[in-house]
Amino acid sequence: MYDGPLQDLIDALSRLPGIGPKGAQRIAFHILDASDEEVDALADTLREVKEKAKFCSVCFNVSADETCRYCRDSRRDQSVICVVEESKDVIAVERTREFRGLYHVLGGAISPLDGRGPADLHIRELCTRLADGVVTEVILATNPNLEGEATASYLSRLLSPMGVKVSRLASGLPVGGDLEYADEVTLGRAFEGRRYVSSEPDARTA
Amino acid sequence: MYDGPLQDLIDALSRLPGIGPKGAQRIAFHILDASDEEVDALADTLREVKEKAKFCSVCFNVSADETCRYCRDSRRDQSVICVVEESKDVIAVERTREFRGLYHVLGGAISPLDGRGPADLHIRELCTRLADGVVTEVILATNPNLEGEATASYLSRLLSPMGVKVSRLASGLPVGGDLEYADEVTLGRAFEGRRYVSSEPDARTA
Repeated sequence: MYDGPLQDLIDALSRLPGIGPKGAQRIAFHILDASDEEVDALADTLREVKEKAKFCSVCFNVSADETCRYCRDSRRDQSVICVVEESKDVIAVERTREFRGLYHVLGGAISPLDGRGPADLHIRELCTRLADGVVTEVILATNPNLEGEATASYLSRLLSPMGVKVSRLASGLPVGGDLEYADEVTLGRAFEGRRYVSSEPDARTA
Repeated sequence: MYDGPLQDLIDALSRLPGIGPKGAQRIAFHILDASDEEVDALADTLREVKEKAKFCSVCFNVSADETCRYCRDSRRDQSVICVVEESKDVIAVERTREFRGLYHVLGGAISPLDGRGPADLHIRELCTRLADGVVTEVILATNPNLEGEATASYLSRLLSPMGVKVSRLASGLPVGGDLEYADEVTLGRAFEGRRYVSSEPDARTA
């Protein structure tokens, strides 16, 4: 619809995830109105991410340095590793403030449909980290979907014989959610994983 | 939450219109995964918009050349000018396929609260375009809000004595909309601008 460079920018922005044609147009006009310095800064920041962002050599989390802030932090519990699919999952776990151990970022999940097998993930490096016996527990925090579940069950079979405790995050009803609106799989999981709260011993074994 | 350049990019993207922190994170990870060529191309396109995008010297529409495609097109009706606030409004009007005349982009609307008066808009240039008498009608297509209405009424008072027909886009119920959900101002306008459809002459003058 527009001439030359403005349309090129709208097209390029539309290809980014979560930006539709209307949003791309809005951002393009914002860029057109912005100062040269602002636009130069944004263009530089884009390039810098590609040039400077590295992945931690231990856990493969995204990092500005050779090792990430979690692997460098000696106050964190060195005996537990939380295995996640992506670096953004590390941030999600950190936000809970429930976990003070180390991480391992797989770089995705096993997905035969996308041609991604165990060899394409950082699984060998995870096994290497378990070799010295410092780590005693591995928490599998892959996504609660088909690929994530397949990856967790693969890892569970692989790691259990190595003498570490392997656990999987609980599935169930989201806190603040409504039972009526829960899908049947989630509700089924909530039943399966139910916890007995009665103080009578009989109830616990029912 | 992230280290160094990745966080810088998330921050920079969050400042763009319509992108929240979650969307910025998603785009930043997309950039991290994209090829160097793709990212370089996006950064170049951003800079090129600032360097190469110009404004038409006649109508102030955004343009890759000295004059825009509408002003260059001799097949368009040279006797009608549609006055809009922004270049994106030109595209909106073009999409209707109802208008085949020329445009004039004001560069905003009169807004005393934002300190924008008639002198800050391309109004003088509009008057210059009307001087040779080729243009016989001006359609005021500013936005149907406070600033747009103020601008339209200012222009209407300014242009009417110059011997051109001045019209304003109709206000009323949006097509496909629901009367129940129309706000009272819009519904009021729809009453005010009602058109008689009865074939009896009496009804038309009622």
